[in-house]
Amino acid sequence: MIRTINVKTTTRTEFVDITSRVQALVEESGVQNGTCIIYVPHTTAGVTINEGADPSVVKDIQAMLSRLVPRSSGYLHAEGNSDAHIKASIAGSSQTLIIEGGRLVLGTWQAVFFCEFDGARNRRVTVKITADQT
Amino acid sequence: MIRTINVKTTTRTEFVDITSRVQALVEESGVQNGTCIIYVPHTTAGVTINEGADPSVVKDIQAMLSRLVPRSSGYLHAEGNSDAHIKASIAGSSQTLIIEGGRLVLGTWQAVFFCEFDGARNRRVTVKITADQT
Amino acid sequence: MIRTINVKTTTRTEFVDITSRVQALVEESGVQNGTCIIYVPHTTAGVTINEGADPSVVKDIQAMLSRLVPRSSGYLHAEGNSDAHIKASIAGSSQTLIIEGGRLVLGTWQAVFFCEFDGARNRRVTVKITADQT
Repeated sequence: MIRTINVKTTTRTEFVDITSRVQALVEESGVQNGTCIIYVPHTTAGVTINEGADPSVVKDIQAMLSRLVPRSSGYLHAEGNSDAHIKASIAGSSQTLIIEGGRLVLGTWQAVFFCEFDGARNRRVTVKITADQT
Repeated sequence: MIRTINVKTTTRTEFVDITSRVQALVEESGVQNGTCIIYVPHTTAGVTINEGADPSVVKDIQAMLSRLVPRSSGYLHAEGNSDAHIKASIAGSSQTLIIEGGRLVLGTWQAVFFCEFDGARNRRVTVKITADQT
Repeated sequence: MIRTINVKTTTRTEFVDITSRVQALVEESGVQNGTCIIYVPHTTAGVTINEGADPSVVKDIQAMLSRLVPRSSGYLHAEGNSDAHIKASIAGSSQTLIIEGGRLVLGTWQAVFFCEFDGARNRRVTVKITADQT
């Protein structure tokens, strides 16, 4: 089963918690045991897993990435968003999660975040849910 | 098959080679051809693949990450471990390995490392081994 | 189905677009719906997904990684390529792609890049293509 999650970002850099939307797709699929690939088909956005309880954590991640990869730095790519491309490769384009007993296997504090690095935009996340062979 | 590897770390930052323990689970599973997802359910730890022969390599990785992401840097998150959260997102929460002929497909020098960024702690690694459809 | 793509790099740092070669393997496999694991069995190289249209983008990624992780920096590992090992762990050793209708699911601007950080060398990329259970 492949589904698309639509994410509307409202600022240039923003991490959006999509955990409950991915979990809802797992439930829709009916898959009890399997895997879930979360794939971002954009080159200036990514996906990461980190703490969802305190929103300061992902703000710290965003701030550090912006300190390490400044918006302007003599880049060759002329569109003014090279920093966003670089951050996307650091964060990564996909995450593979385990499904057990109809639930995503996540640690107590873990959440799945869509990582916007060049918003505000309308974005898509592709989710593929596969059942284990029975 | 889903199994848990328990890892006891002894310092704040530490990479623990878990390759032989993952390979032992592959053998226990009896899977000849398939995939192996190594998933870290923590938000201040990760998993990476790099050289296992010379222990200096992972020490260099840890030192560079600590230089890039200092322990104190005006972080918002008040628990004093924002650096560990950031490093976890840079390293990544999971790795997907190929199983062929009952063995993990790894390069000559590759090993799988649990990456502790906020130890010492008792940690878990979730390993899911899936056989190909036959 | 597991296949090897051979990549010959010509400089120390170089990103090689392997998208069409991976897609050709998907076609050879005949798999309509499934997954494709792209695995780099080296410890000084990686694989990333980013923009393939403007070659400046991956040049900017390479330049920023080299600025963040300098070639010399008091490293312990004595082979003079610690920077390459560190960059490999930042980029990551593998990518998991979705196959739908016999095609890799990639965004409009996305391409798959083999990331050489310690060339020139002859390198290998392992590609595993798995069909969904039917």
